[in-house]
Amino acid sequence: MAEKITPRSQDYSQWYIDIVLNAKLADYSDVRGCMIIRPNGYAIWEKMQAALDKMFKDTGHVNAYFPLFIPESYMKKEAEHIEGFAPECAVVTHGGGEELKEKLYVRPTSETIIWSTYARWIQSYRDLPILINQWANVVRWELRTRLFLRTAEFLWQEGHTAHATEAEAMAEVLQMIEIYRRFAEEFMAMPVIVGKKTESEKFAGAVETYCIEAMMQDGKALQAGTSHHLGQNFAKAFGCRYQTKEGKLEYVWATSWGVSTRLIGALVMAHSDDKGLVLPPKLASRQVVIVPIFKGDKADIMQEATRLQALLRKKGITAFIDDSEQNTPGWKFAEYELQGIPLRVELGPKDVAAKQCVVVRRDTGEKLTFRLDEQIELRILELLDAMQQNLFERAKAFRDANIKEVKDYEEFKAQVEKGFAIAHWDGTRETEAKIKEETKATIRCIPTQEEFLNKYDMHAEGKCIYSGKPSKQKVVFAKAY
Amino acid sequence: MAEKITPRSQDYSQWYIDIVLNAKLADYSDVRGCMIIRPNGYAIWEKMQAALDKMFKDTGHVNAYFPLFIPESYMKKEAEHIEGFAPECAVVTHGGGEELKEKLYVRPTSETIIWSTYARWIQSYRDLPILINQWANVVRWELRTRLFLRTAEFLWQEGHTAHATEAEAMAEVLQMIEIYRRFAEEFMAMPVIVGKKTESEKFAGAVETYCIEAMMQDGKALQAGTSHHLGQNFAKAFGCRYQTKEGKLEYVWATSWGVSTRLIGALVMAHSDDKGLVLPPKLASRQVVIVPIFKGDKADIMQEATRLQALLRKKGITAFIDDSEQNTPGWKFAEYELQGIPLRVELGPKDVAAKQCVVVRRDTGEKLTFRLDEQIELRILELLDAMQQNLFERAKAFRDANIKEVKDYEEFKAQVEKGFAIAHWDGTRETEAKIKEETKATIRCIPTQEEFLNKYDMHAEGKCIYSGKPSKQKVVFAKAY
Repeated sequence: MAEKITPRSQDYSQWYIDIVLNAKLADYSDVRGCMIIRPNGYAIWEKMQAALDKMFKDTGHVNAYFPLFIPESYMKKEAEHIEGFAPECAVVTHGGGEELKEKLYVRPTSETIIWSTYARWIQSYRDLPILINQWANVVRWELRTRLFLRTAEFLWQEGHTAHATEAEAMAEVLQMIEIYRRFAEEFMAMPVIVGKKTESEKFAGAVETYCIEAMMQDGKALQAGTSHHLGQNFAKAFGCRYQTKEGKLEYVWATSWGVSTRLIGALVMAHSDDKGLVLPPKLASRQVVIVPIFKGDKADIMQEATRLQALLRKKGITAFIDDSEQNTPGWKFAEYELQGIPLRVELGPKDVAAKQCVVVRRDTGEKLTFRLDEQIELRILELLDAMQQNLFERAKAFRDANIKEVKDYEEFKAQVEKGFAIAHWDGTRETEAKIKEETKATIRCIPTQEEFLNKYDMHAEGKCIYSGKPSKQKVVFAKAY
Repeated sequence: MAEKITPRSQDYSQWYIDIVLNAKLADYSDVRGCMIIRPNGYAIWEKMQAALDKMFKDTGHVNAYFPLFIPESYMKKEAEHIEGFAPECAVVTHGGGEELKEKLYVRPTSETIIWSTYARWIQSYRDLPILINQWANVVRWELRTRLFLRTAEFLWQEGHTAHATEAEAMAEVLQMIEIYRRFAEEFMAMPVIVGKKTESEKFAGAVETYCIEAMMQDGKALQAGTSHHLGQNFAKAFGCRYQTKEGKLEYVWATSWGVSTRLIGALVMAHSDDKGLVLPPKLASRQVVIVPIFKGDKADIMQEATRLQALLRKKGITAFIDDSEQNTPGWKFAEYELQGIPLRVELGPKDVAAKQCVVVRRDTGEKLTFRLDEQIELRILELLDAMQQNLFERAKAFRDANIKEVKDYEEFKAQVEKGFAIAHWDGTRETEAKIKEETKATIRCIPTQEEFLNKYDMHAEGKCIYSGKPSKQKVVFAKAY
């Protein structure tokens, strides 16, 4: 175990960094803005990948891999795209000891290299749809970086689909944002608001961007996934047309969608506490640690520990025993709390004699006594499910308590210091920019979920919180990561 | 389906390219030397990853992720390493719109960035061993590229381990080359020779390189995996020392090991034929295609097809039905032979009436008639196992028939045009270089497997095939991909 973790109340940013470093999720590297994802952090990413990849495949997507490098001329073919990404790119100018004739950009995202390929692959309506996803690294040169949340290189998945009609593309956009919502809520136990980005916040090159937005424990927002309707922008930039059944030539419709390793940062900030990491059981690569407590004879205790481990593993629960003697049980308790192992089972001589064990929940700290009978693995399975559910409900209660509709700009300014503000907006880019300049709060999204719309009566007309001009809808404002 | 595939007998290189392109495993990109791995190819890679990842984890390894970029100064810290890799590197000189103070190399391999990190992570013997693997993309600027076999960017895994003693490091090196051998033989159905590289063929920065070498259908060799004993070279370059139990400071011992997407190329060349791809069932993401043959009523046939698909899936066999009407059964047969689906099940009205189906093996073309009873899924499972075994045995028989011990240089030159030559070598770099210059054949390895050593009496003394000087051992020569 390591240095003390700064309490959240004292310094939330430092608390986050302390958790990430001490739970060994990631480390700084000597390469500007690039991080090292350590085994504990990568194990979470593998769990995330497995869950997402299954959802993608269940909806007909397949994986592929496109080049890391993008010729400069390709990046420049879609005007808004290059304008948005050029300042963030890393550029390769030399290869094999020689200066390159054309510079290569390290991909910040792959729309251009993929659409230059789709233009070759797509001739007829029979070639559509294309439903491809890619797991890859991307590079965006960031000035201020923060482990997981904003790094020059990060890992992500990017889906790139091609469709015959706008309606089909739009259905894909909505299907994928719904998959992200489900993943965030069911696996990460992190409630999200689904909505659309404003014109100034949307993806460079998109017609519309849908997003999921989560609230962190400091009341700030974190964009956790996006799904873009790209219209025919990239098809036109790369001359990608298809022959319809009727023999006409039409441009192809596109979508793209992605989530990244920043989700690991979101996970940390959504649930963890001053003792360390708190992980939802579904994303914990090690769900149960069994700590035998020896006093005198070990054999009986180890026999019970091993038997319990085998029972749990048979049910698909990832359990392990820490019987190392170089550390005390107390040290182990603290260490595995720091690492966010969901359940700790303590097995001492008295427990074994009484045919029971002590089970400690990481989310609440609650201590339970379980009989060491043949049903124990089922009760532990139920407990893990209950913890998954509890984390979600706790996060949702916190979020709902920190979303507030505000009536005037003063109230607005106070609210965005501590949570999300629901406010009327006149719909102009100018107002949005002024508010951002004055408060650092941005429009996180224009919500689209019916339940949310109804709860906050989002479609009611009113007056803009800033300009006082007429407003046709309310939107969600917050300061964001 | 697509253009005709050039027969192997006519042009082996073109045959290979035809298979890769027509089975849609990969495609060229417009980025120099970089390929696109298409969904059919990526699905093979996913199968390979799953099998290897499990073997790595079963032997105590964990995954992590290190930066894509390596500062130039790090690359230069190990003299042999930079000498070997500098000519192959892609170099980033600009980021975020500005020229960088220090150039960044796109990783050609990650020893330097990883050992600069291990130097921070390792203080005491308690921190050892470190057993980390990384799945990543790497870039090596190649002049002549060939899909999968040699591309500027490729995907791979690279294991990097740190140990307290040389014996422990050496045990790791041997464990990993054995894992690669098992993977090649048991999953890829591709027999390999295990051995050591000569001084001039070893990894830049290694003390010793172990490798597995496979024979392709044209008699050429393909290096399919390497495991390096790095000694203390990188620990010394990066000042990585640990305190022993006795309180002394010692440099850490290192290994690294990797296999890449070139294995997909090896797989194609090991088993495929003039009709297209042949895949071992264990690496086929789709193992059985069911082709219903309609004449009149479809309902009965589709009912049987669906029932069969469900039975197979229950046994973990990946089966799918192609009931599309835009293509004829004959077209489908040829297409799925091209794509390498191991088994085809044909279901026509007469078959259904007779409660049977026709099963066609991709490896031999053999047609079998199976009763549509409740045992069919077991018989198909057995058949898939038999095919896996048959592919290995066929490839091994081919290899053994094309390895020959040669007595003189004339025989040697003839043999390396068609297979592997076993020959005495005087052990000098000069002879090795001369032979390479004159024949393009290289020493693939100094074999280490007992069975192989005995079979070819490798340790017998003799005279060098080239110089006539005394030789203490025979080695394996071949032209290589």
